[in-house]
Amino acid sequence: MSFRISTELRAGPGQFLTGLRDDDSLLRQVFFSILRHHHPNLAAKVDVIYALSQAWCTSQSDSDFELLVKYVSDLKPEERILVASSFSHMLNLHNLTEEVNSSQIGRAVRLGEMDSPTRDTNHSLLKLTAVNGLTPQQVYDSLCNQTVELVLTAHPTQALRASLLKKYAIVRRELDTLHSKRMSEYEKIETLEAIRAAVQAAWRTDEIRRSKPTPQDEMRSGLSYFSTVIFDVVPVFHRRVDTALEKMGLPRLPLDKALFKFGSWMGGDRDGNPNVTAETTRDVVVLARLEAVNTYFRQVESLMFDLSMWRCSPEMKELAERIAAAESREAARVAEERKKRNYADFWAPIPATEPFRVVLSHMRDRLYNTRQVLHQCLVHPNMSVRGALEEAGAYLDIEDMARPLKLMYDSLMSTGDASVANSRLLDLLRQLRTFGLSMMGLDIRQESSRHTEVMDAITTYLGLGSYASWDEQTRLKFLLDELQGKRPLMPPGMDMSPDVKEVVATFRMLSGLPSDSLGAYIISMAKTASDVLAVVLLQRESGVRPALRVVPLFETLEDLNNAPGTMTTLLSNDWYRAHINGMHECMIGYSDSGKDAGRLAAAWALYETQEKLVAVAAEYGIRLVLFHGRGGTVGRGGGPTHMAIRSQPSGTINGHLRVTVQGEIIEQQFGEKEVCFRTLDLYTSAVLEAALDPPPAPRQEWRDLMTRLATDSCDMYRSVVYRTPEFYEYFMQSTAASELGRLNIGSRPSSRKQGGIETLRAIPWIFAWTQQRLHLPVWLGIGEALEGAIAQGYQPVLQDMYANWPFFTSTLDLVEMVLAKADARLSAFYERTLVEGSLAPLGEKLRRLLAKTQQHILIVVRKNALLEGNTPSQMSTPNLDEKIRLRSPYVAPLNVLQALSLKGLRKFRELGHGGVEYNPSDPEIIDLLSRDPHKKGEGAQHPFVSAMDDCLMITIKGIAAGMQNTG
Amino acid sequence: MSFRISTELRAGPGQFLTGLRDDDSLLRQVFFSILRHHHPNLAAKVDVIYALSQAWCTSQSDSDFELLVKYVSDLKPEERILVASSFSHMLNLHNLTEEVNSSQIGRAVRLGEMDSPTRDTNHSLLKLTAVNGLTPQQVYDSLCNQTVELVLTAHPTQALRASLLKKYAIVRRELDTLHSKRMSEYEKIETLEAIRAAVQAAWRTDEIRRSKPTPQDEMRSGLSYFSTVIFDVVPVFHRRVDTALEKMGLPRLPLDKALFKFGSWMGGDRDGNPNVTAETTRDVVVLARLEAVNTYFRQVESLMFDLSMWRCSPEMKELAERIAAAESREAARVAEERKKRNYADFWAPIPATEPFRVVLSHMRDRLYNTRQVLHQCLVHPNMSVRGALEEAGAYLDIEDMARPLKLMYDSLMSTGDASVANSRLLDLLRQLRTFGLSMMGLDIRQESSRHTEVMDAITTYLGLGSYASWDEQTRLKFLLDELQGKRPLMPPGMDMSPDVKEVVATFRMLSGLPSDSLGAYIISMAKTASDVLAVVLLQRESGVRPALRVVPLFETLEDLNNAPGTMTTLLSNDWYRAHINGMHECMIGYSDSGKDAGRLAAAWALYETQEKLVAVAAEYGIRLVLFHGRGGTVGRGGGPTHMAIRSQPSGTINGHLRVTVQGEIIEQQFGEKEVCFRTLDLYTSAVLEAALDPPPAPRQEWRDLMTRLATDSCDMYRSVVYRTPEFYEYFMQSTAASELGRLNIGSRPSSRKQGGIETLRAIPWIFAWTQQRLHLPVWLGIGEALEGAIAQGYQPVLQDMYANWPFFTSTLDLVEMVLAKADARLSAFYERTLVEGSLAPLGEKLRRLLAKTQQHILIVVRKNALLEGNTPSQMSTPNLDEKIRLRSPYVAPLNVLQALSLKGLRKFRELGHGGVEYNPSDPEIIDLLSRDPHKKGEGAQHPFVSAMDDCLMITIKGIAAGMQNTG
Repeated sequence: MSFRISTELRAGPGQFLTGLRDDDSLLRQVFFSILRHHHPNLAAKVDVIYALSQAWCTSQSDSDFELLVKYVSDLKPEERILVASSFSHMLNLHNLTEEVNSSQIGRAVRLGEMDSPTRDTNHSLLKLTAVNGLTPQQVYDSLCNQTVELVLTAHPTQALRASLLKKYAIVRRELDTLHSKRMSEYEKIETLEAIRAAVQAAWRTDEIRRSKPTPQDEMRSGLSYFSTVIFDVVPVFHRRVDTALEKMGLPRLPLDKALFKFGSWMGGDRDGNPNVTAETTRDVVVLARLEAVNTYFRQVESLMFDLSMWRCSPEMKELAERIAAAESREAARVAEERKKRNYADFWAPIPATEPFRVVLSHMRDRLYNTRQVLHQCLVHPNMSVRGALEEAGAYLDIEDMARPLKLMYDSLMSTGDASVANSRLLDLLRQLRTFGLSMMGLDIRQESSRHTEVMDAITTYLGLGSYASWDEQTRLKFLLDELQGKRPLMPPGMDMSPDVKEVVATFRMLSGLPSDSLGAYIISMAKTASDVLAVVLLQRESGVRPALRVVPLFETLEDLNNAPGTMTTLLSNDWYRAHINGMHECMIGYSDSGKDAGRLAAAWALYETQEKLVAVAAEYGIRLVLFHGRGGTVGRGGGPTHMAIRSQPSGTINGHLRVTVQGEIIEQQFGEKEVCFRTLDLYTSAVLEAALDPPPAPRQEWRDLMTRLATDSCDMYRSVVYRTPEFYEYFMQSTAASELGRLNIGSRPSSRKQGGIETLRAIPWIFAWTQQRLHLPVWLGIGEALEGAIAQGYQPVLQDMYANWPFFTSTLDLVEMVLAKADARLSAFYERTLVEGSLAPLGEKLRRLLAKTQQHILIVVRKNALLEGNTPSQMSTPNLDEKIRLRSPYVAPLNVLQALSLKGLRKFRELGHGGVEYNPSDPEIIDLLSRDPHKKGEGAQHPFVSAMDDCLMITIKGIAAGMQNTG
Repeated sequence: MSFRISTELRAGPGQFLTGLRDDDSLLRQVFFSILRHHHPNLAAKVDVIYALSQAWCTSQSDSDFELLVKYVSDLKPEERILVASSFSHMLNLHNLTEEVNSSQIGRAVRLGEMDSPTRDTNHSLLKLTAVNGLTPQQVYDSLCNQTVELVLTAHPTQALRASLLKKYAIVRRELDTLHSKRMSEYEKIETLEAIRAAVQAAWRTDEIRRSKPTPQDEMRSGLSYFSTVIFDVVPVFHRRVDTALEKMGLPRLPLDKALFKFGSWMGGDRDGNPNVTAETTRDVVVLARLEAVNTYFRQVESLMFDLSMWRCSPEMKELAERIAAAESREAARVAEERKKRNYADFWAPIPATEPFRVVLSHMRDRLYNTRQVLHQCLVHPNMSVRGALEEAGAYLDIEDMARPLKLMYDSLMSTGDASVANSRLLDLLRQLRTFGLSMMGLDIRQESSRHTEVMDAITTYLGLGSYASWDEQTRLKFLLDELQGKRPLMPPGMDMSPDVKEVVATFRMLSGLPSDSLGAYIISMAKTASDVLAVVLLQRESGVRPALRVVPLFETLEDLNNAPGTMTTLLSNDWYRAHINGMHECMIGYSDSGKDAGRLAAAWALYETQEKLVAVAAEYGIRLVLFHGRGGTVGRGGGPTHMAIRSQPSGTINGHLRVTVQGEIIEQQFGEKEVCFRTLDLYTSAVLEAALDPPPAPRQEWRDLMTRLATDSCDMYRSVVYRTPEFYEYFMQSTAASELGRLNIGSRPSSRKQGGIETLRAIPWIFAWTQQRLHLPVWLGIGEALEGAIAQGYQPVLQDMYANWPFFTSTLDLVEMVLAKADARLSAFYERTLVEGSLAPLGEKLRRLLAKTQQHILIVVRKNALLEGNTPSQMSTPNLDEKIRLRSPYVAPLNVLQALSLKGLRKFRELGHGGVEYNPSDPEIIDLLSRDPHKKGEGAQHPFVSAMDDCLMITIKGIAAGMQNTG
């Protein structure tokens, strides 16, 4: 080894930061020129508001803020709509420049022009072998045993309408092209025109969704991510893994290894939304299978062109000749039939001298039949899907497709055609392993009380008493006796209430679906062991074979704390252990526990519960799988993926991650192929790490301190939320919570029955506070807990916990990130505008608590400003603090507009017509105010109301877009 | 205006020439490494043969040639197959590097990195206004009045199987990506692997097509060019024209202006191929309409996302509300129905607040119905397509689609949404104008004698005598009386021979097809006016309304010379003139006249005939359209497009060009989007030029000299071909003409009945000479004609004609190009190997004639070597001479192998088994020799025969690939 002074080059400083700025200003100019073109005078107002908002965001002075408020208040109602809409659009355009910018960075990283900017540097697989003393073989084995299952769930708060999403996707794509492709001047003119056309089209589209999307709609757009992006990226990613493995002298991944599986709740999640019925679920299953068949059909067709060779292995030859012989026996009929099907090519029976095509065209015919059968299932709602597929000899079992493809693969390998075998054929085999014939597994989710209702209806009908009034022990004994016996329980012709009938219909319908289309049966609000057994029994009664694995979802803090007990009860039962044969899955949710105990207590309860559950399972030699429901916006426990993965207690993931991908996260993580590639990349390396280099277990004194922090924050949280009588009033007056119900976001109602905070569902609760920028549910109580601990000299311990305990790190990072987005001044403005004076001291108190929380968080994380990025390698990419600051001039005016709209609407409701006289005569404005088809004719409202309504809706979407963090 | 010494930069010298070489050597290395992997010892032999062939191509010495021949002769039969196959593959790979190279050049030109290399520099529209004193408006008007109609015809000599074409397309695409995209090292590895996989797959595929393609197969692959390439490129091209027009202050092209129309013969051309039946034609019409509907369906669906705005014009609003009202009346049924159709989106009835979507989703439903109906037509062969479409209320008339789209366009323009109107909506309107609902117009082509047969069957049956034996005058009178009368002629239940029945069935079938799916009815071998009227009558009798325009195809020299007379007879008839209302189309073909009079006489006859036809038409105030059938390989009058267009007599094109795109030209001109764009580009500018700046008319003395040259060359040509008794023997012995019949190229037999040259069809006649590199039909007779003229001092006139008369220029350029590919030495080798000694002097004579022709051509074109490119701007692109030289080391071995195979086959036929004992026992070889499914079992041949057969087939394809000129 010798010495030499060396030199090296990197992409120059700040190039991507300016990139972000240039795109941002390009899109802003395009937007303004469109705005000026359609509403010249309004454009000038938007310009001034933006300038005032910017001045305030930089100076943070009261005078600037008052200037901004005064100016916005002087807007006429119809102007408020358009101004709100302008800022909402500018915000969305800004967000996608962030996405474009990060995919530029992705590309730069890949082309090796710079190191990857995410926090810790990534070394490739190669490095692990050198530094950690692990052999390549160990890393390879670990990789072969890991799967990541991503479960897509509906967009409860999916703010943007699909059509706007499409238009922004066009802008994003053209912008990206502008950066990465050399083009002639004409092409550049046409690209800029395409961008302009898309922005123009977006601006002229009504951005408020006027009718509720059906679950099938959701399923459709979910499916389109698969067919347009995910289906193609998965094999590319596997191929890239193979190339990397080869470079370090390891073999490719095994043929039947799939690093990813996909699941979905769309059309299966009936918790709280009545229009997910048995039929809906059936539809989405059929639709998903249809999508899968269509994509395989295309793959098989193009494989028919690729595999035109005549040499093959004897087994292959024998199969091809058998098929060719069968076809030539009725050549005319086959040709006739194919003609009807209007195949693109290969009508005539194919000679056995093209063995691969013979087999493939046979597969094509079966795929065509499968498609026909599935169509039939769509048309005739009560055909059993499984039955129909079986008797039509369609593809039902995936091995029917895998076997011949595998045979072709082996044949090509044996005749020395490895490079042909490892191209499109290998891709197809991998897609088959990843997506199967169902594309994804559909989870069914139902609330425990609905099953209790059914059992009660049965026991009452049979005169065994009322199941609902039995205590837990009686239920358990009854359920276990039934389960270990053979007698049918469900009496035919029992009359049922509609709710009971629906649950029973669902179970029956499940028995007719192919099992690979179904994932887990999730019981939300699961509290006791009987909740689980009831479902096991109901499945057996309805003939669901093979039964879905039953997954309890422990949501409230109480249920979480009892979860280990509940699981012990279950796993201690011999029959049940045999029934689950060695594996049990539990789901732990964030949102509800956060609502009634505060974020810290919820996170800690979750952490401990996971450990206890793992311990309970290990005690009975059961492999426990934890299903993580991760929220979209940070409020619901989102945040950068692999931080989240690292922060799990060790031993909870070990090679198998099942997690939900919620809300607009789907668009962000799977919207483009480039982005999707990176998503798969991040999950794979995060899980591999969790398995091979797990985070160290936390020290005892950290646990004790953490427990204390959890209790203190919980007490404080509850004393404010539940034991401060005027808190509810303050909440309902200072947020849009009461108006949220009417927003058509997501397909489920926002509260279970009336009265008090505890009746509010977690999502609207968090969403309401996010909108008014206090973000209370995330931080409330944490400040005091930390203050208490610091007061007794635990500061160094806390700092140590933050520095070395990933769980504590990611918990505080999340809170810090939210605090960076909170704005006490704006929240105070909501109060000033909407809350009656007597509640002001409460607001005053809440903002003090916010400032205190921030102050103590900064002490623990050792920064003197929120999000103060402290590692130099972030030099050239815009860091999070930067991103938030670039957005806030767009969000502030939306907050001001929202508060004013709420005031307008509430005053109007109080005074009836008297309060305001607003009667526009300009037809342009009348049209603007009557875009809601459901409010025409007698449903029409007073123009002022519909103006404020629309303005409110738009600001809600805009602020949501401003609060999300991309990438 | 002032002075300054200026500087400018160009792409450096030879960069593209090296580009060509690098790609060439890259693909050759990939191919050799695959060859070495599978057949190591054979690879070494191919290497030596290539080296020997290269040495000979550079030194042109006898000793090198004999070395090459000896080495090739020592190959074992199975080695010959593989060697032939190797060179054929290397040649195809080389050809696509030329294509890649020229699309690199295309890109470089577009990005302005270099000037375009084609011979004369192209200035843009702008320049015309400055130099030629034409106003922009004139240029604009001329552009608006021009259409180019491209008629795709089947691939009679389409050498490559579709599957090989696909694989080479992959190689071409990946190679292009390698050049134009920056990629990471991993991406580069994967691209090179993809190339390797495709080459490997191509090499392992049986390149001989073992069964004849059906017309529907041809139609299918023809259609795929539309859906994958042409359909998308046409609007992009129109958009580019608009952008250029805008830059010079002109408006966009009018909305309903289509610069291009497309036609096809695939499935309509029954001249000489019996398996194009009435049903076939119907199928292809339905298939084409299906393809069109499918593409419009996709366009409408994505437009539904784009046009989500709520503002629209009153007319638009009124239409949307009418549709929305109709749908909401039966909302449930509509939703139900859409559910069955499994639309990707927009199930539920759409509210009128989204007017564009309401109308578009209504269009989508009708498109869906249209598709269903067309499917039915495919399944039930005797449903009348037009009838079925009508009663189902499906789209039959294009205005049904254009009207609502136009309404949307006007609506968007009126609400100031021009940039939205001019994006995807404008593209769709243009596609509609270009492709209509039929995608293309199908021409029907039938031989005149088949109609004479039908008329004869009718008149005999009616006892009016035998039509076939009537003279022309009697026929004319009879036909005209019938046409001007109303009485039906065809008696029901007349019994017919199968040939007559087929013709009658075709006419009846035509009456049931939508008229926009049909183009012209072309009568091949048209000789007299009655040939035309017979078809007019037969159409009326069969109820073909509106009737297809009847286009006579004058093929032989005699028919060409009588064409003006024939047309005068027709146009002088008042009834007929009224019937054709102001427009008549004639088709003039090259190939046959070339066969019986030689190239020069044929070209001149064509030239004069066109002028006379135009004159005759002008005399009767009829606009004459000339339909040019342009061949594929040069032999059949191909050659660079706009030279060909410029060389037409002035006044024959004037803004309307109808031309066939034959053979592998389709793959070359429409295989990729980049190439397709350039094709449309070339045709547009060539036609615009012909209209605005026509070539000057030739001077009288040029005509007289040309007439002389034509007669002299014709006499000489005939004296050799028809009046040299042993010529036919020489031809049949020294070429593969007799074996060509069995080559499954193209779907039609190669000769009409037996005996002599005149029974041979033009295509095989030319093809046979191309294969043995004498190219006799192209140049025979030209040498003497020129020699005669030069001998009498016409040399300066000839040189003047070449320099200033585009017709003479392009005629001689074509001959020069062919001479550059001719190789007397190889032709002599065919003779030495295959022809009996007594015929040697004839061969000797033919080669002397070749040398003499070359010598005199060079005098006239003032070059001292063939293809001596004499303009410096060609500095950096490989010129034609270069291309030919780069290929010849690949072609020469194929010629040697072909001659040896022919000898082997013929000796075997003479001596039966006796001659050769070749009985391979190696199973690998036995497989190799039994890849033909039709020759299994009792159809099996002696292994030597099938070895030589395959070798022959492969060399024929290879040489064809070597003789074509790309780009």
